[in-house]
Amino acid sequence: MENEQRLINGKAMLQRVDAEAADSVMTNLQNVAPDVAKMILEFAFNDIYTRPGLSLQQRELVTITSLLTQGDTAAQLRVHLNGCLNVGLSRTEIVETCIHCIPYVGFPKVLNALTVVTAIFADRED
Amino acid sequence: MENEQRLINGKAMLQRVDAEAADSVMTNLQNVAPDVAKMILEFAFNDIYTRPGLSLQQRELVTITSLLTQGDTAAQLRVHLNGCLNVGLSRTEIVETCIHCIPYVGFPKVLNALTVVTAIFADRED
Amino acid sequence: MENEQRLINGKAMLQRVDAEAADSVMTNLQNVAPDVAKMILEFAFNDIYTRPGLSLQQRELVTITSLLTQGDTAAQLRVHLNGCLNVGLSRTEIVETCIHCIPYVGFPKVLNALTVVTAIFADRED
Amino acid sequence: MENEQRLINGKAMLQRVDAEAADSVMTNLQNVAPDVAKMILEFAFNDIYTRPGLSLQQRELVTITSLLTQGDTAAQLRVHLNGCLNVGLSRTEIVETCIHCIPYVGFPKVLNALTVVTAIFADRED
Amino acid sequence: MENEQRLINGKAMLQRVDAEAADSVMTNLQNVAPDVAKMILEFAFNDIYTRPGLSLQQRELVTITSLLTQGDTAAQLRVHLNGCLNVGLSRTEIVETCIHCIPYVGFPKVLNALTVVTAIFADRED
Amino acid sequence: MENEQRLINGKAMLQRVDAEAADSVMTNLQNVAPDVAKMILEFAFNDIYTRPGLSLQQRELVTITSLLTQGDTAAQLRVHLNGCLNVGLSRTEIVETCIHCIPYVGFPKVLNALTVVTAIFADRED
Repeated sequence: MENEQRLINGKAMLQRVDAEAADSVMTNLQNVAPDVAKMILEFAFNDIYTRPGLSLQQRELVTITSLLTQGDTAAQLRVHLNGCLNVGLSRTEIVETCIHCIPYVGFPKVLNALTVVTAIFADRED
Repeated sequence: MENEQRLINGKAMLQRVDAEAADSVMTNLQNVAPDVAKMILEFAFNDIYTRPGLSLQQRELVTITSLLTQGDTAAQLRVHLNGCLNVGLSRTEIVETCIHCIPYVGFPKVLNALTVVTAIFADRED
Repeated sequence: MENEQRLINGKAMLQRVDAEAADSVMTNLQNVAPDVAKMILEFAFNDIYTRPGLSLQQRELVTITSLLTQGDTAAQLRVHLNGCLNVGLSRTEIVETCIHCIPYVGFPKVLNALTVVTAIFADRED
Repeated sequence: MENEQRLINGKAMLQRVDAEAADSVMTNLQNVAPDVAKMILEFAFNDIYTRPGLSLQQRELVTITSLLTQGDTAAQLRVHLNGCLNVGLSRTEIVETCIHCIPYVGFPKVLNALTVVTAIFADRED
Repeated sequence: MENEQRLINGKAMLQRVDAEAADSVMTNLQNVAPDVAKMILEFAFNDIYTRPGLSLQQRELVTITSLLTQGDTAAQLRVHLNGCLNVGLSRTEIVETCIHCIPYVGFPKVLNALTVVTAIFADRED
Repeated sequence: MENEQRLINGKAMLQRVDAEAADSVMTNLQNVAPDVAKMILEFAFNDIYTRPGLSLQQRELVTITSLLTQGDTAAQLRVHLNGCLNVGLSRTEIVETCIHCIPYVGFPKVLNALTVVTAIFADRED
């Protein structure tokens, strides 16, 4: 596949996951590192996200788990908590995913994630 | 629920996830910290794992993602990669979960996990 | 011990460590994940904190060291720096604990912790 | 070398790397942990930074890579992104260093660093 | 650029950095996750490593710093310490890079890296 | 204080904490990075460890907590678990410190530490 097609597919995928984020990713990186925005779309949202073998719901569950576990990722959690809801995961599945991580990472990282979850849930009506 | 019941339920759950691990957890911790084995069973495998809201397959997917992301967890990955297969996840779902983490954690942590995946897959016939 | 007693004991312990935090933990988690507040009280502040073998002062010293070392834990440090002072550790012991971590974690994590320490010390009169 | 000379040399080195930071390090730590400011100057900026074998440009490149990789270091990145420019690294070298880390640490940590880079570049005219 | 060309360029680049690793990457991943080997070559060693703006020596210095800082990366450090020497960095530059990280990450991670450095240096005659 | 005195004091302190480690630190680093051994003695074991404000027992408790929390530190834990026992901490205090970290870092890091604890306790007769 040529890069142009990877970019188009990646944009379409990010649009599905979080349409608002799709715009702001490009804007924020435009001045200093526009190539990083392209890599996010081509590599992450085309090469990785469009692979078969996992549903989009599974992918978003894996994504928020990885972000919660590494910490210092409130900005990215915001995008992908919206993404979770946009691809059809329930609020319960999101909260249970956070709770499931407690024995693996301890309470502080889970509480940090739940602070972002609380804010996202309050902002949305679904 | 009383602690005795939590322990019984937790043992049954770990038995389902990874029967071999269920034995060795108790044995390894017996001399130095037997209470930690009880906490793993009561808190992790009863209080957390038996909650509704996520399937056991989703829980094991979340678990290996969290272990892969934090690193230095080869021993725990071994238990839960077996757990993934035992609760019905496919080899493809496991490998795709690792691949999905590349954009979030980079290649080194994913390669470390895939080394354990390769060893576990080679040991099993399913 | 039944869960009800674990909850009562855990509340009493968190009250001793940081009375203000005891209230806000429940409030913040009330809408999205009230069970996590219960787990913090039952598991962390009853099952763990009430164990013999370490004094409360030792426990709070261990707590702030673990929080400082993992990073991205300013909110939790605030609770437990107050906790340190509430259980009778001196300001000197707190600052020296941070300094002692420099050879193990480097300056950035220690400076992040000292920023929170400075704010907490300024807020209190003891 | 006596400690007094280490302190003088360390101050001169930090002055070269980031004159503004040189002042604020001392001020911020003055009340709670003045000895830490001395250790930063004597140990980090004298004992380490003045060693032969790496140029100051190489040292600052290594520094921002280490800060980006460990995460939760926006405050320290601000000092050393200014440091990079002050010792003669180009904006391109800084951005490329961030981009180079993507395969090793993933996008979230790199995006966090690029947020700080964007702010620093906007503040300066060189 | 088409993916085929990205793969060819990536292979050539990894060949330059560490010819032995170029072979083993493909072999180890062949059974379980051959696509990851392709991503390493296409994304890491073509898209990233062939960018202008940093010399190969700077890239390898950044790489070992990131690996040392994240920890649990002895296998990857082995590849890139060889890579450092292969692209013309001196033993002194490698050791000084490790030493430079002490104030940022503390002694344990640096000592872990120096253990690998010692083994690699002992194996080579350059 | 002159560096010579810092080195002498640091050696004496490490001797107290773990006499066997005092020898092997110098030996292992002798070929590749002898200055790092000096920094460990002068900076860590003189400048930091000899400060007033914390007892040696408190310092070793803080040390093993920081090592357990950062992970990938089995080698350093071995030194400082011996150190804990050498400065008079009991086996119970060591195990309880590990258990106390469960709510803050999760089970995997604590189990990794307890594996080292079990080995050290088996090796010693005190």
